[in-house]
Amino acid sequence: MATNGIISNGKDRSNLIPFSSRLREGRALAQDVWSIFNAANLPSDCINLGQGYMNFAPPQWVKEAAEEALNSVATNHYSHPKGRLRLREAIKAHYEPDFGRSLNPETEILVTSGQYSVFVAFLEQGDEVIMFEPFFDQYLPSVTFNGGVPVYVPLHPPTGAGKQSSHEWTIDFDELRRAVTPRTKMIIVNTPHNPVGKVFTRPELEQIAAIAEEFNLLVMSDEVYDSLVFDDEEHVRIATLPGMWDRTVTVGSAGKTFAATGWRVGWLIGPQSIIYPTLAATTRIVFCSNSPLQEATAVGLEQAKKRGFLKQQCDEYAERRKILTDGFDKLGMKYSNPQGSYFVLLDIRNVKWPDDYPFPESVLGRGRDFRACWFIAMEVGVSSIPVSEFYCEEHTSIGEAYARFAFCKDVDTLKHAVERLQNLKKYLA
Amino acid sequence: MATNGIISNGKDRSNLIPFSSRLREGRALAQDVWSIFNAANLPSDCINLGQGYMNFAPPQWVKEAAEEALNSVATNHYSHPKGRLRLREAIKAHYEPDFGRSLNPETEILVTSGQYSVFVAFLEQGDEVIMFEPFFDQYLPSVTFNGGVPVYVPLHPPTGAGKQSSHEWTIDFDELRRAVTPRTKMIIVNTPHNPVGKVFTRPELEQIAAIAEEFNLLVMSDEVYDSLVFDDEEHVRIATLPGMWDRTVTVGSAGKTFAATGWRVGWLIGPQSIIYPTLAATTRIVFCSNSPLQEATAVGLEQAKKRGFLKQQCDEYAERRKILTDGFDKLGMKYSNPQGSYFVLLDIRNVKWPDDYPFPESVLGRGRDFRACWFIAMEVGVSSIPVSEFYCEEHTSIGEAYARFAFCKDVDTLKHAVERLQNLKKYLA
Ligand SMILES: Cc1ncc(COP(=O)(O)O)c(C=O)c1O
Ligand SMILES: Cc1ncc(COP(=O)(O)O)c(C=O)c1O
Repeated sequence: MATNGIISNGKDRSNLIPFSSRLREGRALAQDVWSIFNAANLPSDCINLGQGYMNFAPPQWVKEAAEEALNSVATNHYSHPKGRLRLREAIKAHYEPDFGRSLNPETEILVTSGQYSVFVAFLEQGDEVIMFEPFFDQYLPSVTFNGGVPVYVPLHPPTGAGKQSSHEWTIDFDELRRAVTPRTKMIIVNTPHNPVGKVFTRPELEQIAAIAEEFNLLVMSDEVYDSLVFDDEEHVRIATLPGMWDRTVTVGSAGKTFAATGWRVGWLIGPQSIIYPTLAATTRIVFCSNSPLQEATAVGLEQAKKRGFLKQQCDEYAERRKILTDGFDKLGMKYSNPQGSYFVLLDIRNVKWPDDYPFPESVLGRGRDFRACWFIAMEVGVSSIPVSEFYCEEHTSIGEAYARFAFCKDVDTLKHAVERLQNLKKYLA
Repeated sequence: MATNGIISNGKDRSNLIPFSSRLREGRALAQDVWSIFNAANLPSDCINLGQGYMNFAPPQWVKEAAEEALNSVATNHYSHPKGRLRLREAIKAHYEPDFGRSLNPETEILVTSGQYSVFVAFLEQGDEVIMFEPFFDQYLPSVTFNGGVPVYVPLHPPTGAGKQSSHEWTIDFDELRRAVTPRTKMIIVNTPHNPVGKVFTRPELEQIAAIAEEFNLLVMSDEVYDSLVFDDEEHVRIATLPGMWDRTVTVGSAGKTFAATGWRVGWLIGPQSIIYPTLAATTRIVFCSNSPLQEATAVGLEQAKKRGFLKQQCDEYAERRKILTDGFDKLGMKYSNPQGSYFVLLDIRNVKWPDDYPFPESVLGRGRDFRACWFIAMEVGVSSIPVSEFYCEEHTSIGEAYARFAFCKDVDTLKHAVERLQNLKKYLA
């Protein structure tokens, strides 16, 4: 465990003020996977398929809306903590068909800068939060910083030989049921899923919903990749299942929808009983999200469907996916073909390296996947992210079979990466 | 105290999921002063001198830098959680002369979206945080949400007759010393001060520093108005006093520096021992601040001094202050002339209204100042903020003598407001 010691510089007066014990939880002070596999530590010409941000820009017409916002006065100043009304109206119009109900922009929609405020608003000391592994790494400290206790339920990876799909990652519902205790407060669902790419099916969500109803759980449904669903897969929103509206908060993100991860505009949709306390929390945490990019996001959502933008973007991502998975096919490696999001999990169990390969301290003592990803980055020049980072210690062995490759990159970059990846062939056992 | 009841809509399944008890603290669910004195509740042509945002735009050259950032790729995507390097370098160059030391942009500077992360990073359950009243209202929930206990020490208002200055708001250092207990962890200093306008003097800060040293306290020095100091007043940074660097985190804001309150870009400067845990917290709360406006802020700080922008802006604010205070002088009302920030506290004790004046529920049962501000907004058409909101209940009587008027508005608006305010004359006792 990290202690004050790790940031001591040996000078007398460093660390005069002890930091909070909450930082000792949720891996908050550990060196995270993002800093280990940071461009600065890798070969300078390494192609970055590790981090999940695009190497292309937001659409021109959305950027123009941002410029326009910069050129008027009010859109440079504080927004209402609920979010700019124009954006809340745009979210309402965009999502109502999907939700099959009318959404009140005053009470059921909240523009946010992160999901953290939901945990602040609802967790009581000792409350348990169930999350499926692999999990988006931000969930863990959001739980522990607010007095919660994480409870892990793994998605079970495909077992068959041959071609695999993200659908084959399955929930053992008995296992899920056994994870519920009288202290369980909340369950986190993420569909489409990072890093698996799984789009949860209606029957799966129905079973999760039944458990949420039976044990009165809050459901956080993280659907930030909802605009990236392939192969005519049905993206079901758990909030729309019978009885679920009242206990579900659905999460969306401009970053994923408009290739603008640095804009920091997201939103929550749910009943007033969830949105109101979360508004009280977010107001005190960040006051409001930035105004010019909220305004641009409003324009984005107002026009996205009309312009056919989402369909076109989705097709482009499907093409990017194909470039990457064709490359893996050519290598003869196994992977889970993702139905959604922009990640592919590559099975790296048969990648072998010399026993005396010089790994840095930071990847030794971690899962085997840390060494595999390091080796691949150094030897073939393509970076990825070791998936055991998204598992608790106990379940490392599931995660360490996989490396996560992001395909939110332009076609040329992906083609180039795939070429390089062919050099892996000589390291396959 | 607010309970789940306040958000019940009477339907069966509302409030299925109880919110966290932490929302019952720090007035988190109470209707705050900002919603009571919101434009929507006031006459439609009411001039808003209540809220502290500008009715003018950020400088053109800074907005152009934002447009440029929108037009390249990387500046639309995630920034490093520490902040964009260019911005950290700009903060370094801008502040080093003031701090009289070299600042390491990797370890001693953090770009943030709020001060909340400092409280997350340092507070332990039951830790006490001393704040001077009146206090910026966001401090209170930042303390209580993270298990802290607020301890209030009032600034004592001027007592003499005649012209008053914000300097005459004073600290009783015996009172401050008595407020320290073995559980005191932190003290918040805000200079220039909102809402008093006080710029803390060197001797005052030296005495606070001595107490911080004696009892090993973390000092959060909120200096977001550091570019708005008038009359050649010396703005002393407590972090620069002997021994204080190691225990002080200094807060700055692009919103106040570049008339861009909606940009949500701020920064913290301090020793690694404070910045590192705070980085761990902020990474988990918002991940990073928005990228395009960080880049624009970098350009702003790089060029602000060279262009003479800060001097010119400060002169403009001094002119705005004069318009407002001349108006109060003409009325013959008492106020504290502020040495910094963009607020004037008007003494409203001699404003009288008919006994049967129809006040709304929301201002009844609050301090007298709530009624005074309401009355002034309705009768003369200028809104302000009642200052008792910035005091604990016990000290309401100090705050209710004052209304806060913001002068971060263009000259025409202020002149118009001052004209209207002359109509107060007939209500002065
Ligand atoms: C599952 C999941 N949820 C939420 C987020 C955060 O999205 P944003 O960048 O909008 O904060 C991400 C980003 O990678 C993600 O993968
Ligand atoms: C004393 C004080 N600190 C901090 C802030 C917050 O500044 P920002 O808008 O940059 O979050 C304000 C804003 O009113 C303030 O008055």
